[in-house]
Amino acid sequence: MRGNVIVGQSGGPTSVINSSLVGVYKTAKDRGAGKVYGMLHGIKGLLDGQYVDLSEHIKTDLDIDLLKRTPSSFLGSCRYKLPEICDNRDVYDQIFAKLKELNIEAFFYIGGNDSMDTIKKLSDYAILINSDIKFMGVPKTIDNDLATTDHTPGYGSAAKYIAAVTKEIIRDGLVYDYPTITIIEIMGRNAGWLTAAAALSKTEDCEGVDMIFLPEVPFDIDFFMNKVKELSKVKSSIVIAISEGIKVADGRYVFELADHVEFTDAFGHKQLSGSAKFLANKIGAELGVKTRAIELSTLQRCAAHMTSRVDITEAFQVGGAAVKAAFEGETGKVIVLDRVSDDPYICVTSSQDVHKIANIEKKVPLEWITKDNTYVSDELIHYIKPLIQAELSPVMVDGLPRHLRLNL
Amino acid sequence: MRGNVIVGQSGGPTSVINSSLVGVYKTAKDRGAGKVYGMLHGIKGLLDGQYVDLSEHIKTDLDIDLLKRTPSSFLGSCRYKLPEICDNRDVYDQIFAKLKELNIEAFFYIGGNDSMDTIKKLSDYAILINSDIKFMGVPKTIDNDLATTDHTPGYGSAAKYIAAVTKEIIRDGLVYDYPTITIIEIMGRNAGWLTAAAALSKTEDCEGVDMIFLPEVPFDIDFFMNKVKELSKVKSSIVIAISEGIKVADGRYVFELADHVEFTDAFGHKQLSGSAKFLANKIGAELGVKTRAIELSTLQRCAAHMTSRVDITEAFQVGGAAVKAAFEGETGKVIVLDRVSDDPYICVTSSQDVHKIANIEKKVPLEWITKDNTYVSDELIHYIKPLIQAELSPVMVDGLPRHLRLNL
Repeated sequence: MRGNVIVGQSGGPTSVINSSLVGVYKTAKDRGAGKVYGMLHGIKGLLDGQYVDLSEHIKTDLDIDLLKRTPSSFLGSCRYKLPEICDNRDVYDQIFAKLKELNIEAFFYIGGNDSMDTIKKLSDYAILINSDIKFMGVPKTIDNDLATTDHTPGYGSAAKYIAAVTKEIIRDGLVYDYPTITIIEIMGRNAGWLTAAAALSKTEDCEGVDMIFLPEVPFDIDFFMNKVKELSKVKSSIVIAISEGIKVADGRYVFELADHVEFTDAFGHKQLSGSAKFLANKIGAELGVKTRAIELSTLQRCAAHMTSRVDITEAFQVGGAAVKAAFEGETGKVIVLDRVSDDPYICVTSSQDVHKIANIEKKVPLEWITKDNTYVSDELIHYIKPLIQAELSPVMVDGLPRHLRLNL
Repeated sequence: MRGNVIVGQSGGPTSVINSSLVGVYKTAKDRGAGKVYGMLHGIKGLLDGQYVDLSEHIKTDLDIDLLKRTPSSFLGSCRYKLPEICDNRDVYDQIFAKLKELNIEAFFYIGGNDSMDTIKKLSDYAILINSDIKFMGVPKTIDNDLATTDHTPGYGSAAKYIAAVTKEIIRDGLVYDYPTITIIEIMGRNAGWLTAAAALSKTEDCEGVDMIFLPEVPFDIDFFMNKVKELSKVKSSIVIAISEGIKVADGRYVFELADHVEFTDAFGHKQLSGSAKFLANKIGAELGVKTRAIELSTLQRCAAHMTSRVDITEAFQVGGAAVKAAFEGETGKVIVLDRVSDDPYICVTSSQDVHKIANIEKKVPLEWITKDNTYVSDELIHYIKPLIQAELSPVMVDGLPRHLRLNL
């Protein structure tokens, strides 16, 4: 007879992170798990004794379908990095005591790089203390920056949202009979995967964005301004996609070039936004044309009303595959997606040693950026396109998408 | 036998402005019009001889359905105000010469306040020169600020988008285990209709926004900060909706209170944005909590992937009703929406003298704002709710919403 399992969510949310939660929950139940616990606010909540029995919150098939369509982490999230084992064994002993108390057989953690680090440390500690609890990582991040996986669940839906609204913004910019230049600022501190998705806006019915700037290569502001000037001689409506993380050669973020800018938050952290506004203002001042700066902002990671069915399905699959692997005895692993074929698109799951994944940031390969650094290659577009396909329509109630809320 | 008709679009675009265009086109064709011309970039394009025969661009029933789902003005827009007749008759003579040359029987203009002013002046001039061309206004504006109509086509879809993404943003803000305060900045320079739609985010599955600030009443910054401080004692995740147009008692916009702010564009026009950022920074500095400022930006008027079917249908109806009225001999009129019943929601069209509508800005009635100016009344919520109902699913091609593009 199977024991209980526990699952947590960590890091920044995505539109499909709950589909992975459903994948863990349903597969664990179907494969005979006792209770399926959910940690509230990840490992930090577990340490504080905060967890729920998921069966009390996911009661019907409708709940499951609503949860797949609910953005943001159903169980809450945290940004908590476990200490090195050699520095503080107490916290590990606390966690394992909790897990023993709950009769946990397998522990699943849905998250990005930091969360995979948690799985690495917990599975290492299990070896150290000879515990047979299984620890499995379930990847998610809109940033698509995890190593060894073809892509990460969450990325496809964010890419679809970015491409769809970019099409709408381009159409909006075309209406006037005077020149307009629009700069769209897209998430991605170090990796340009999300910004690259703006390239998908080029379709039979849309001219697409004119330039794309990724954080993988230095941003040359004079070159940029010259390009804009050239373009504005031949085009009335110009739309440019930039990553929030673009930096000039000396390492400063572009928004740091502004004369007056409050770029630290209450904690003194740099706030990564404002580069679009800075560039729009500069273009407006130098070219005397109407400019707009649009930050796609938080909606990139929570616009569950515009998700990719491929992404939602894969998010579910990685959750389910993690349970299957754990129940078959694997531990210290992360479920990854392996692309078998581009056309037709076929992707399967496999498990990888977490040590190969944690703390490695996968960036856009430089050969997928055009030589003058102003656009992305066809290879990159072909890579993204299958990930945005098909839809899972929202369940609309009284005119609005319905979500499943955790009621405590 | 009927003559030809001409239709133009003017002012800021909406998600459903092309549904009105389809309403004019289809009804004119069905009622025996000869050619249906489309002015490019409104009256300004007509003056420059820029127009198309719409039959060459709307060829199939699929085109019609795609056009209903295409955001932004298919024919292009302009911001052009006709001179007073007494100041410059030349421009009127030019326009009427063009219309005669094209054998125009009726002229339709889809737009907001400025566009209704155009209809007023042209129909006045027709009387003056004894022309029997009919001039009809077809209202559109996301701002919902036109007089005598229950609401304007375009508003319902913008309200639905705002409510839907506000729900998603609220859900996103709830995931962390530390306090966050989010300020959402919503369009509306003088009228708070759009910002009020954030109230619809309060549903069975969502706690809704905590406060709403409209431009109809002065914004008291000390009162605001105290309210936020009070709220933060009892709530971890706070979401506040503000209008971009909120002003303090002395008449300055809130974003003008910032020490350093570039609030004029290349033309010296005040750029109406930054109030959310200013307030988020202030809260962050004074309360030491994590804050976020989110500008919903251009997507409020072009997010055709999230439209209200009620709105799309009504947009079509006002276009059709304008043609019917013109063909029955009316001129100098605007088609308005009259709400017959709230529950069940029933709305019909009628025509109103354009002199009663043009250049009047309808604001949110003060009795629909709560006494402390921090929320809206149930009456206002009941007023908006029917307008966001039901959907017209996008036609998805290769993972993205398909639009109809005007190919010249």
